[in-house]
Amino acid sequence: MIHQLSIVGLGLLGGSVAKAVREASLAREIVAVGRRREALEPALHEGVVDRITTDLAGGISGSDFCLLAAPVSTLEALLPAVWTAAPGGAVITDVGSTKGRIVRTADRLAASRPLRFIGGHPMAGSEQSGYGIARADLFRGAVVILTPTEKSDADALARVRTFWEALGAHVTTLDPTTHDRAVAAVSHLPHLVADALVDAVLRMDPTFLDVAARGFKDTTRIAASSPGVWREIFQDNRPALVEAVAAFRKSLDHLEGLISSGDASAIEQELDRIRQARERLR
Amino acid sequence: MIHQLSIVGLGLLGGSVAKAVREASLAREIVAVGRRREALEPALHEGVVDRITTDLAGGISGSDFCLLAAPVSTLEALLPAVWTAAPGGAVITDVGSTKGRIVRTADRLAASRPLRFIGGHPMAGSEQSGYGIARADLFRGAVVILTPTEKSDADALARVRTFWEALGAHVTTLDPTTHDRAVAAVSHLPHLVADALVDAVLRMDPTFLDVAARGFKDTTRIAASSPGVWREIFQDNRPALVEAVAAFRKSLDHLEGLISSGDASAIEQELDRIRQARERLR
Repeated sequence: MIHQLSIVGLGLLGGSVAKAVREASLAREIVAVGRRREALEPALHEGVVDRITTDLAGGISGSDFCLLAAPVSTLEALLPAVWTAAPGGAVITDVGSTKGRIVRTADRLAASRPLRFIGGHPMAGSEQSGYGIARADLFRGAVVILTPTEKSDADALARVRTFWEALGAHVTTLDPTTHDRAVAAVSHLPHLVADALVDAVLRMDPTFLDVAARGFKDTTRIAASSPGVWREIFQDNRPALVEAVAAFRKSLDHLEGLISSGDASAIEQELDRIRQARERLR
Repeated sequence: MIHQLSIVGLGLLGGSVAKAVREASLAREIVAVGRRREALEPALHEGVVDRITTDLAGGISGSDFCLLAAPVSTLEALLPAVWTAAPGGAVITDVGSTKGRIVRTADRLAASRPLRFIGGHPMAGSEQSGYGIARADLFRGAVVILTPTEKSDADALARVRTFWEALGAHVTTLDPTTHDRAVAAVSHLPHLVADALVDAVLRMDPTFLDVAARGFKDTTRIAASSPGVWREIFQDNRPALVEAVAAFRKSLDHLEGLISSGDASAIEQELDRIRQARERLR
């Protein structure tokens, strides 16, 4: 049981954690920290959180479990203040979609004041954002990646793991660099490609969108995501994204080359190999 | 009211038409023509069709409305036999996913025997195939593209349009070449890109697929489609697909260049422009 869960940033992810924790009675008190009080008020009125504040230090000073759910760019900037205000025994974790930089920053801060930080990334979300669409079951069946390093405290890792598992998630661990390459491949690259697909149709003839069917809509659904959030993610994970785009270009060249070669059985064999890999995902 | 609807090829599309026509009592008799009798028997037993045959000529000789729902490659090969067997007054249409070649073949055949052919393409389907997943409401709300030429019979076009509208579809017309460019952009390109996305992840590290979330699954769902069907479509529509891939490469280069430039407001502006175009699709 958590004594005081402090959630910094009450958007889709932070809000969904609050709802899930409340529903499962996993914390005695839930405190939400945000920049604008008005944005936090609905959660207070609904009884999803017990206290709201725009004062970071006040919101986390009594916390034994602190979840940082602000956007990636804000997280970086917040971390030194979190480090100063959090109690010595607290476990601190985050939900940022890239992990290399935040984990390095935490390691650097830990050199002067040892605090137990475990990087985290729930692979759940939506092309929409905000507390308004938060829901208690968002993490049920979702993958949550934790990114401990050799310096991480084993007990803190176990607590963060237990926390997400109690919310119904499957927890897996990766080192921060591998995490950033993996999400570049399965999350950031598909986003960029979806954006490029929509742009390519606009480039050819915008009226072609009038005959788009479910296949196009599914493939490009994520292109309707928040430009601000994704601009940050693309920039934050640029080296890994560049590697993923290079791999994608090779794959596209390879498949287009096969189609141009006219070798029917070679094309079909490759499409079948890809289909089989995709089907294992269902 | 159709007197005898003949459906050549009783897969997902042909089977769904049969079910929808039966449900709405749009034809007195429905005849299904296929290569294997066993594949047609379930529809006969269910009362979805009245007669089944493996004999193309026998199946369409008494037909006033003939729907060709075989795969694109088979359609080409079937058309001369259809032309010989169909009654003079019949309206013939198809559901093939490319239109240039089939319409040219029909025009050529019509030079020696005037018959009323209207190319058609319902933008509905699934990554699965076969009569087993056919359903009467498949075309409800779907776009059906008809591709008449200046030689097409206006009355035949009106009949085909009325037919699809009776099944709940939105009918639009494009010339065959524009159709092929449009579907290359909004259907064939997304398929190829979904295949390349899966292949790119396999290329980087297949274990990355273990952390794939809903975004990746949606974006690559169509990569689980039948390799045989898509090999044919890619090859059949190669010139338009190559044009679409070129436009896509420009878009990808453009977006990657912006990300590398580090110009936050330019990236966000472009992502926002794309998001707005995508949102108009919902």
